Amino acid sequence: MKAVRTQLSQLGRRLDFPAIARLMTAALERPGLLSLAAGFTDNATLPLAEVGDLAAELARAGDASVLQYGANQGRTALRAWTAERLDALDGVPRGRLNEAQAFITNGSQQALHLAASILCDPGDIVLVEQPTYFVFLEALKGLGIRPVGIPALSDGAPDLDGFRSLLAGLIAEGQAARVRALYLVSYHSNPSSRSLSEAEKTGLAEALRAAGLVVPVIEDAAYRELGYDGPSDARSVFSLPAYDGFPRLFLGTFTKTYATGLKVGYGLCDDPLWLGQMLYLKGHQDFGTGQYAQALIERAVLTGRFEAGLVRLRAAYARKAGVLDGLLRRSGLEAAGWSWSRPDGGLYLWLRGPEGLDTGFDGPLFRAAMEAGVLYVPGELCFPPGADNRHVRLSFGVLDGDALEEAGRRFVQACEATRG
Amino acid sequence: MKAVRTQLSQLGRRLDFPAIARLMTAALERPGLLSLAAGFTDNATLPLAEVGDLAAELARAGDASVLQYGANQGRTALRAWTAERLDALDGVPRGRLNEAQAFITNGSQQALHLAASILCDPGDIVLVEQPTYFVFLEALKGLGIRPVGIPALSDGAPDLDGFRSLLAGLIAEGQAARVRALYLVSYHSNPSSRSLSEAEKTGLAEALRAAGLVVPVIEDAAYRELGYDGPSDARSVFSLPAYDGFPRLFLGTFTKTYATGLKVGYGLCDDPLWLGQMLYLKGHQDFGTGQYAQALIERAVLTGRFEAGLVRLRAAYARKAGVLDGLLRRSGLEAAGWSWSRPDGGLYLWLRGPEGLDTGFDGPLFRAAMEAGVLYVPGELCFPPGADNRHVRLSFGVLDGDALEEAGRRFVQACEATRG
Repeated sequence: MKAVRTQLSQLGRRLDFPAIARLMTAALERPGLLSLAAGFTDNATLPLAEVGDLAAELARAGDASVLQYGANQGRTALRAWTAERLDALDGVPRGRLNEAQAFITNGSQQALHLAASILCDPGDIVLVEQPTYFVFLEALKGLGIRPVGIPALSDGAPDLDGFRSLLAGLIAEGQAARVRALYLVSYHSNPSSRSLSEAEKTGLAEALRAAGLVVPVIEDAAYRELGYDGPSDARSVFSLPAYDGFPRLFLGTFTKTYATGLKVGYGLCDDPLWLGQMLYLKGHQDFGTGQYAQALIERAVLTGRFEAGLVRLRAAYARKAGVLDGLLRRSGLEAAGWSWSRPDGGLYLWLRGPEGLDTGFDGPLFRAAMEAGVLYVPGELCFPPGADNRHVRLSFGVLDGDALEEAGRRFVQACEATRG
Repeated sequence: MKAVRTQLSQLGRRLDFPAIARLMTAALERPGLLSLAAGFTDNATLPLAEVGDLAAELARAGDASVLQYGANQGRTALRAWTAERLDALDGVPRGRLNEAQAFITNGSQQALHLAASILCDPGDIVLVEQPTYFVFLEALKGLGIRPVGIPALSDGAPDLDGFRSLLAGLIAEGQAARVRALYLVSYHSNPSSRSLSEAEKTGLAEALRAAGLVVPVIEDAAYRELGYDGPSDARSVFSLPAYDGFPRLFLGTFTKTYATGLKVGYGLCDDPLWLGQMLYLKGHQDFGTGQYAQALIERAVLTGRFEAGLVRLRAAYARKAGVLDGLLRRSGLEAAGWSWSRPDGGLYLWLRGPEGLDTGFDGPLFRAAMEAGVLYVPGELCFPPGADNRHVRLSFGVLDGDALEEAGRRFVQACEATRG
């Protein structure tokens, strides 16, 4: 009966089947598959009873406004706590940042999407680390934004000489005005688990400033609190003098590392124009994150449960990182040309495969892994297109115990099956 | 220190101070103000203890996955219930719609924003009722989309002859290809509280089809469940044969009319392309609505609490509608040239002022209302720019008892102060 294909907007036509859906489809099609791919958290660590207690306390407190619509920007007390927390983590006196600069989002992903939407038109450039958070790369692709990778040294550190050359090249090509933002996943990065040092962050800012590119900086700190020895004390871009004058957005999540399904993220932004337009856009998208979820997490932070939860989580993930790292080391993968660092935070092992190995969806390792019954994230997803296809991200977020070890053994088996 | 103004995207530059913020600012600046403006619900009706019970039951059930990330599209059981509910309200056998066509959003507003973003580029046209939901008009403005108003008769019904002329005019001007969607707020509309009859909806579809404009239809049913005598039995666009072949999206909210702050909305879409691209965009924006809020509302619908809550709410709002309507009728406003219908559902009284009165932000009534200490929504917000400035939306959502009556008296006082 339908005569014509539904007409879509440019955005609607650009959106494409996401890589993450390809992973999920693979998982659904093979029920026995063990997933080292999903960046989910461990159900055993999720504080279901505790969240029930928080809800009971809200009920006893009797303030029904927690079930009312809230302000678009988010709950004031939670925003104030967000500002104070970053000041405390950065080791500066309380009051540098304030609740007017903070906003609450549907997970930190919404803050990322708002940030890029407000800054960039199709064809504009965002500078990203290599590797970087692949879900953000997908979002950039959807928005038609070009990710340009910051060159990296073999240990994963940013290659500052290479970065200066890259910027000079962009300027020479007349692309300077298209460079709209720098995106950093600076703490226990997804996917690499590597953190940027203060010196590295400073070097990036100095190179940008020297090139005349004082562009907005997005610091994605989703995993800062998940350092196994506590939150990293490398200061944020708000505290590094090299970033003075750069419009700054620092964003993260309250809930991924505490009670994932509450899905409450935040941003802190010192550029009133950028912040204001992000809030207008959020107003159109949802006019505020669910007040009840915010009230639950606000109670969790103010009663110390959030902190206590982090302590439990850090121990759990440190242990699981050790299990998977140890299993892989004992397996002889290193002798076969694989290399990786043991993480000191986060949820991921980031492995570099032997020279010439293609770890991508269409390569031999992925096929062998599917046959062995284990799923991983091909590293190619975490780079601008075509930049690298020899890495693998393994997550020890979900699995534990026998399942984690079995998944690790299957991955080793797949590696052995593809040895040249 | 900052050298340059932050560069924004076209979207970022287009977003502007929203009218709703102007209302909220007015409220904040005058603490004694009583608000008949906010479309919020009544805190006294919000089931705070009941939601605490739901959380306790989730804790006892012991399935920690409710605190895990969920699927981008939403929880399967909740989606299935959504499809079944619409089939039941439309009086058709279960199974016509299914969970694959349903998706869960951060309030119904997210579904609206996704829908328009996928269909329309800047300069495209969405056909809207007059009046229509002003927050959607704001979102369209942010996206650069042109709302074109469907002519209305004096009783608020769509003027089908006028609509046919309008479409003919658009075609004559070469604008046919820019018409991308029809937007209907068809049940106890915000702002008018009027519902569209089946014949009216059918007439709109027939006019579009006759003009060769079989465009996507967005039916916003946020208030369908809030008919004071139960949900309206006027069938949705999914059940009216005139809409066969039109891509259809029916959307609504579980929580506004039950536990507002949980903020869980839904959409049902029978066009796989439109649906798929909306889901991709949602994936980029937030990759799924908070699972815990979904689990709470899923439990509320499956245990019958949602239904029981609606029964309570309908009675409460019917009573409050009667209070405000009665007070205004007794005040003599009608003799002074005001007219309105008593609502049979929803949260709003929609008043037409005397000939020549400007109810807008910059008109005498708004000024007099601020002086009298009462806030209302100027009707001009609910029309395409410049179309009408003699209406007023009064909400009896929030206030009750003495405060509702006092707010009504203040509004009457403002009307009297501006009488010619």
